[in-house]
Amino acid sequence: MKGGVREPLIRGSGDFDMLEKINSPQDLKGLSLEELEGLAAEIRALLVETVLRQGGHLASNLGVVELTLALDYVFNPPEDKLVFDVGHQAYVHKILTGRREAFSHLRERGELSGFPRISESEYDAFAGGHASTSISAALGMARARDLMGGTHAVVAVVGDGALTGGMCYEALNDAGSSRTPLIVVLNDNEMSISRNVGALSRHLTRMRSGRLYGRARKAVKSGLGRLPGIGRPVLRSVTSAVASIKRLLLGEHFFEALGVRYLGPIDGHDLKNLISVLKRAAAGDEPTLIHVITQKGRGYAEAEEQPERYHGVPAGTGRPAEAPNSRIAVDELIALAEKDSRVAALTAAMPVGTGLIEFARRFPERFFDVGIAEEHMITMAAGMAAAGLKPYVGVYSTFLQRGYDQLINDVCLESLPVTLLIDRGGLVGQDGATHQGAFDLSYLRQMPNMVVASPRDVRQLKRMIRLSAALNGPMAIRYAREGDDLGADPRDGEPLRLGSWEELAGGVDVEILAVGRMVRVALDASAELERRGVSCGVVDARFIKPLDEERLRDAAGRRLLVTLEDNALAGGFGSAVNEKLAAWGLRANVMNLGLPDRFIEQGAVAEQLEECGLTARAVADAVAARFAAAD
Amino acid sequence: MKGGVREPLIRGSGDFDMLEKINSPQDLKGLSLEELEGLAAEIRALLVETVLRQGGHLASNLGVVELTLALDYVFNPPEDKLVFDVGHQAYVHKILTGRREAFSHLRERGELSGFPRISESEYDAFAGGHASTSISAALGMARARDLMGGTHAVVAVVGDGALTGGMCYEALNDAGSSRTPLIVVLNDNEMSISRNVGALSRHLTRMRSGRLYGRARKAVKSGLGRLPGIGRPVLRSVTSAVASIKRLLLGEHFFEALGVRYLGPIDGHDLKNLISVLKRAAAGDEPTLIHVITQKGRGYAEAEEQPERYHGVPAGTGRPAEAPNSRIAVDELIALAEKDSRVAALTAAMPVGTGLIEFARRFPERFFDVGIAEEHMITMAAGMAAAGLKPYVGVYSTFLQRGYDQLINDVCLESLPVTLLIDRGGLVGQDGATHQGAFDLSYLRQMPNMVVASPRDVRQLKRMIRLSAALNGPMAIRYAREGDDLGADPRDGEPLRLGSWEELAGGVDVEILAVGRMVRVALDASAELERRGVSCGVVDARFIKPLDEERLRDAAGRRLLVTLEDNALAGGFGSAVNEKLAAWGLRANVMNLGLPDRFIEQGAVAEQLEECGLTARAVADAVAARFAAAD
Repeated sequence: MKGGVREPLIRGSGDFDMLEKINSPQDLKGLSLEELEGLAAEIRALLVETVLRQGGHLASNLGVVELTLALDYVFNPPEDKLVFDVGHQAYVHKILTGRREAFSHLRERGELSGFPRISESEYDAFAGGHASTSISAALGMARARDLMGGTHAVVAVVGDGALTGGMCYEALNDAGSSRTPLIVVLNDNEMSISRNVGALSRHLTRMRSGRLYGRARKAVKSGLGRLPGIGRPVLRSVTSAVASIKRLLLGEHFFEALGVRYLGPIDGHDLKNLISVLKRAAAGDEPTLIHVITQKGRGYAEAEEQPERYHGVPAGTGRPAEAPNSRIAVDELIALAEKDSRVAALTAAMPVGTGLIEFARRFPERFFDVGIAEEHMITMAAGMAAAGLKPYVGVYSTFLQRGYDQLINDVCLESLPVTLLIDRGGLVGQDGATHQGAFDLSYLRQMPNMVVASPRDVRQLKRMIRLSAALNGPMAIRYAREGDDLGADPRDGEPLRLGSWEELAGGVDVEILAVGRMVRVALDASAELERRGVSCGVVDARFIKPLDEERLRDAAGRRLLVTLEDNALAGGFGSAVNEKLAAWGLRANVMNLGLPDRFIEQGAVAEQLEECGLTARAVADAVAARFAAAD
Repeated sequence: MKGGVREPLIRGSGDFDMLEKINSPQDLKGLSLEELEGLAAEIRALLVETVLRQGGHLASNLGVVELTLALDYVFNPPEDKLVFDVGHQAYVHKILTGRREAFSHLRERGELSGFPRISESEYDAFAGGHASTSISAALGMARARDLMGGTHAVVAVVGDGALTGGMCYEALNDAGSSRTPLIVVLNDNEMSISRNVGALSRHLTRMRSGRLYGRARKAVKSGLGRLPGIGRPVLRSVTSAVASIKRLLLGEHFFEALGVRYLGPIDGHDLKNLISVLKRAAAGDEPTLIHVITQKGRGYAEAEEQPERYHGVPAGTGRPAEAPNSRIAVDELIALAEKDSRVAALTAAMPVGTGLIEFARRFPERFFDVGIAEEHMITMAAGMAAAGLKPYVGVYSTFLQRGYDQLINDVCLESLPVTLLIDRGGLVGQDGATHQGAFDLSYLRQMPNMVVASPRDVRQLKRMIRLSAALNGPMAIRYAREGDDLGADPRDGEPLRLGSWEELAGGVDVEILAVGRMVRVALDASAELERRGVSCGVVDARFIKPLDEERLRDAAGRRLLVTLEDNALAGGFGSAVNEKLAAWGLRANVMNLGLPDRFIEQGAVAEQLEECGLTARAVADAVAARFAAAD
């Protein structure tokens, strides 16, 4: 729901008089409430200015300005530990903890990470990146404190989105039975009727005695009609959002059933109230959850109205980017779904990022967004496949790691026809170490019955999705964010043969077997090598599993065989080639190029490829050197 | 609590007059309540007789006899779908669905699996093995039914233990918002005061209006004093179990907060009541949870009194076995903990299986059993390590798969000193495909900063644990269930050097690099090869990561280099060796021996090794053949 457009709070840049005096949370302690509120306005201005230029997470950070100020005001980091779940909403904390100036280089190579990192600052108690981990980490810290005789506070800040992840529940359940002092701040920004949430929650608080669902639902509906600013038109969306309201209503019982004391809900933009409740929680001696209601994008009208659009902003544009591979994949999936009523699509809270929002518009009844719950998503897809559907899972490579066990036991064991559309495979750029799709080829090819494919461009991507429709077993299709187009191929219209590679350039000395977007790099490297007098062929190794044994045998006859992938060298595609050659007893001269055995930090994708020696020039240099050394 | 010893219900074997007439759930439909109760007694007798002989899960299956009878009586499988969580409690369902005779060969190679398997029977709607998946799978099936226009029932049966897994919560949350008809049977057998649970729950039902925790606690305590058969001595254990009682008390709200209708609690051994409640749930049109209280081991006095001891029973003995590697590891860990107060231990509901129960007895305050919640466990360990503790995680290889993402992002990214004591590595025998520790070396060695070690015997295991104490980063120590002892080594007392291998037998033609328990196989194969005139050395490749580069270079000079592991060939230790040789540009003649790219089903470990060509004779044959073919 849109609500009236608010006067923007953002002032002109450079006007950071108060902020310039804050070099650590200690500098906040003497400030008045008015001064803290002035600081909040400056922080918002800095966030908007920086993130529109550098890229990053805007809406979520605008939503937690007052909350973070209150946390750093009430608590004493680094002695007190603040753990930010997911971590992309930790910008304000970075600004307040000695990283204000460094913040202007947010997410650049060698500069500030977009996530908390222990290795970056003593004020970052734990690394973030993936959702739903903060309560577990904080509980570990609280227990460590208890064993070591400390008395400091440990605070986890977790969004309502991350709270759909099962880990939070596992941790709350454990925390509730531990009875150890631990504060969980639930940052609840899902309510679309945000302007009225204060009134609503007060109303709900008063009627807490009427607990059963039916009664509550009726009361909420009738009650809403009487609240100022909410008329009949809102009722429908509220009714469909009854699940949320219900959660709010029953929140106390929910958390208390887990043994966790509940405080709230409170207005997350009311600094005075926030400080008071945090102080109250800090004085307690048991696990306590504070339910805070915030507004995503707060203070920046465009982000307030379209928080999902301003969730992740790419660098330099000030506007979210398109991701062509997602679009191509989803268009093709929609075409399949039009012909086959068994086709369904699943996502874990990434309908926009994966492009599946278009599928959802076209086939709402066949689309399932499970929230941040990859484990559940994979097993539910397996259940669907066991019952005769043809489920497609749209997921980022890095988040699919959460479903590793479920893929093995629930999908692959019985070879169920679940297709994975794996986006953000390989190096991902500015999101950095926690978000690289660096391991997927390695862990997927381990799994018996799994087919693993990676397209060199959008044309092959389409063919792979068409192939998946005909397969009666699990298949993974892995691609980078950016779509490429290497030009028309005479076979574009033909069905793709399972396990077939394609030779794109002939060569007698060297053969490069390249995967996915590295095919273009291989072609460029090959051209460079030809200029240097080395005849180098290029094969699109579009199937990582099964391998094209005929083409591999042929390639093994060259004086040098090169594998090229933007996946970890450990266990990746090159490793699969090595295993096959060893199984055949062929002593080929092989060079494996791919990602090294370390985490690759943030930077542009081009910088990361450079760092890993995976540019065309670096590949050509490496191949030429190795070729020269070959007997 | 022990309770009076009950008259055993088990009759002499062979007396299965009624059971012999049941070949499918259809045969139950005409039976009277008395006949069903008679059937229950026969099923118990068959369970005890079979499981004591064949090995398997006894206590849990004895607990669900009436529940399963009621399910197969009320519903119509295979049209209606029954999904058993974890699946080790599906024996009764197997017996009732045409597999009564096959049941006598339970868990033998090529015979009945100890878990539900789609590939085994149309009555097994989904495969089981790992916990907390059933609601996700069932929700997928329910949604598939809705899309395909079906009207059949979908039922998930999940234990209270599995309910601590976050996936259940993710699935319930999703189910609650789906509003689709789906029945979840919560099989609650955690109450130690089982004989009185009926009375207690009736009492609790009556006092449901008094909902807040404090009041409930007081009321429960005073109420208990008045219940027949519960005196003062019980009160203390009840007070410490107040968390459980509270869950029971607040259960309704908990599930209703998630949007799931709640029925219960009901007595899970009262067939009449069970049938009536299941029929009521089946008539509903929304997600419904039925809370059923059962007693583990019901009807077999020894198992009733020691349900954990009779959870898993090994074949042929009628008694649970010892697992020497666990014992050695935990003894060594206790010795570390005595010297270093930072040492803590964590387990996910496996205190007995991992041997950590001894650590818990010695250091209760430093021991943390998080329930079935591997994801939370790994991240909590990372939090502990970040806060200065030295956490050790005791976990089965197959269940560690659940923590794959958390190991990468929460442990390895910041290189936190978490040590994994990975039990049941490699082939595990009768638990079969869902429990093989087949993938761990592959997925652990992918992770930057992770040290991966595997001891050949208990002496090396001790040295590895001592080494872990000195490391300031993540380390995985992986071993099989059965401990081995290859005899004293002059270096037993010395500190182990990180990344060092050890040559155990010299040889000039061939070198076998063997991992973990395969070292003994390699030594035997080497002796056999010597008899055949092939001079074969053996190296204990006790570090999978980092590799011993010096020894590897040396071994690469042999005419044949063999890697030997009971881990998947895909991405495993052999693959690491291949990668290193390729990086060096060495064209060695390498043969990788390990687990093939398929799931290995149940059987004795020896049979599984045979099937995979990993016995000493098979290794000797393969090496001799390859050596003969070598130039």
